[in-house]
Amino acid sequence: MGEPYVHGYHPRENERLRDQAGTLVDLLHADTAYPGGSMVLEVGCGVGAQTVTLAQRSPDALFTSVDVSAVSIAEARRRADLAGLTNVELRQADIFALPFDAESFDHVFVCFVQEHLSQPVDALAMLSGRLRPGGTITIIEGDHGSTYFHPDSPAAHAAIKSLVEMQRNAGGNALIGRQLYPLMVEAGLDAVRVSPRMVYVDSSRPDLVDGFTRKTFTAMIEGVRESAVAAGLIEPESFDAGVQALHRTTEADGVFCYTFFKGVGEKRRHA
Amino acid sequence: MGEPYVHGYHPRENERLRDQAGTLVDLLHADTAYPGGSMVLEVGCGVGAQTVTLAQRSPDALFTSVDVSAVSIAEARRRADLAGLTNVELRQADIFALPFDAESFDHVFVCFVQEHLSQPVDALAMLSGRLRPGGTITIIEGDHGSTYFHPDSPAAHAAIKSLVEMQRNAGGNALIGRQLYPLMVEAGLDAVRVSPRMVYVDSSRPDLVDGFTRKTFTAMIEGVRESAVAAGLIEPESFDAGVQALHRTTEADGVFCYTFFKGVGEKRRHA
Repeated sequence: MGEPYVHGYHPRENERLRDQAGTLVDLLHADTAYPGGSMVLEVGCGVGAQTVTLAQRSPDALFTSVDVSAVSIAEARRRADLAGLTNVELRQADIFALPFDAESFDHVFVCFVQEHLSQPVDALAMLSGRLRPGGTITIIEGDHGSTYFHPDSPAAHAAIKSLVEMQRNAGGNALIGRQLYPLMVEAGLDAVRVSPRMVYVDSSRPDLVDGFTRKTFTAMIEGVRESAVAAGLIEPESFDAGVQALHRTTEADGVFCYTFFKGVGEKRRHA
Repeated sequence: MGEPYVHGYHPRENERLRDQAGTLVDLLHADTAYPGGSMVLEVGCGVGAQTVTLAQRSPDALFTSVDVSAVSIAEARRRADLAGLTNVELRQADIFALPFDAESFDHVFVCFVQEHLSQPVDALAMLSGRLRPGGTITIIEGDHGSTYFHPDSPAAHAAIKSLVEMQRNAGGNALIGRQLYPLMVEAGLDAVRVSPRMVYVDSSRPDLVDGFTRKTFTAMIEGVRESAVAAGLIEPESFDAGVQALHRTTEADGVFCYTFFKGVGEKRRHA
C-alpha cells in the first residue's frame, strides 16, 4: 500500500478540510454550545478546522484540544491565534494516552476521528472515563456509503468504494456514521441521541456545489488516487472515470447527496 | 412478469400506505399549508392516504383529488367522510386526460405518482397547464437508492435492487427522488426548491422501527417477492435473505436510513 491516507497532514488536504469546515459549519455545529465555565475536551482536533468554530460558539467555555500530530497542533495554534481565541489550550497527545485525570472534563467533543480507529468503542469508553458523571460526549462522523447522486454512475461508486476499502485495510471504518448509535450505546453511554445531517446539493445551491461536492467530497476522492491504485483496489482508468462522473454531478442538472451523523450521549451518573 | 406492482390496489398494500402516512405525516407535510379559498388539485390521490392530512392541515382550502382507479377513489371517499372532511371533492380521472380547464387551480400536489410514470416531465408540464401563473406545484417522492442500514447486507441491497428494476421495467423510476430538481426545472417551473426528508431509524425511535422500517419499507419489499421472482430479477433464496437482513436492522443495534424528497416550484408568470 502506498502513502497512507490521513486527515490533515498535507497542505492540499488542509485546504480541503478548511473548505469543508466553512461550508458545513451550520449543518454540523449549530446545535452545539457549551455553558460558561465548562471544561471541554476536543480529541483529534487536527489542524483546528472545528476548534475555531467550537470555541467561537461557546466563548465562555474552556477548551482543551489535543491531536497526536505536533505539526497539526502547531497549525491549529496558528489558527486559534489568528482568530484571537483565548479559551483554547492546544496540546499534542495520543487519544489512547491522554495526560488528564479521570472525570476532569464536563464535555468531550470528537469529530472525524472514530472513522480512523480500529477500536472505536474502546476509545469512547476511555474518553468517557475523562468525563464527570452526567457530562456529554458529542461525536460527528461522515458515512461514505451514504453517497448518491444524479446522474448515477457505477464508476463513481467504485472510486468511492476504493476509499472505503482502503480505510478498512488501515483499520478504520468509512461507513461509521450510520453506526454511531450502536457504538455509543455499546460504550456504555446513556440517553444517546443520533441525528443525520444530510447535505443535499443541486445547482440552485452553488456554494454547496463548489464548497461541498467539488472541493470537499470529490477532492477527497481525488486525493486517494495514487494510494488506491497502488494498493490494487481499483484500476486507474476506472478511478478517473469515477472522478469524472462525480464532477458531472456539479453541472446544472446534477444532484449530490451525502450524510453526516451527529451523536450525543451522557456519561452514566453514579448510582 | 407476474402481477404488476401498483400502489394502493391491494388490501395489504392499502394498510401499508396507511401506516406510512401515519408515521411520516410531519416529516413530509408539516410545511405544506394552502391559504383559505385556494383551489388545490391533488393528482393520484390513491386511497386518500395524503388527502386527509392535506385537507385537515388546510381546512379553508378547497381540494379536488383525483385518481385513475375508481376503486381507490371509493376508498378515499370513505376515508374523507370518516374524517368529516367537507373541503374535498374526489373524482375518478386519468392524469393524462384531466377534466379541468387550463389555469383553473391555484396549486397542484402530487405525492408518490411521478415514480410510476415513464414521462414525468411531460406529466409535470401538463399539470402546470392547469395552474394559474404564479401557482405552485408540490411533489413528494421517495428514492429507493437512498436506502442504507446497519448491519449492512448485500442481500438486502439485491432485494431492493430487484424492486428498482421491476419498476424500471414497468416504465417507472424508483430513484426519482434525487432527480426532482432537474425534472422540475426541465418541465419549465420557476423558483424550484427541493429539500430532502431523511428518515433515520435506530432503536431509540421504536415508532419508526415499527412504523417505517418494518411496516413501510420492509413490507413494501416483501410485497413484491412473487413478482420479482417471476420476472427473473432475483432468486427466491436471495430475496428471502435480503428481507431477513432488513428485519435484522430493526433489532436493538440496528439502524435504517431512507430519504424522501419534496420539491416546490412555481408556474412562470406571464411576461
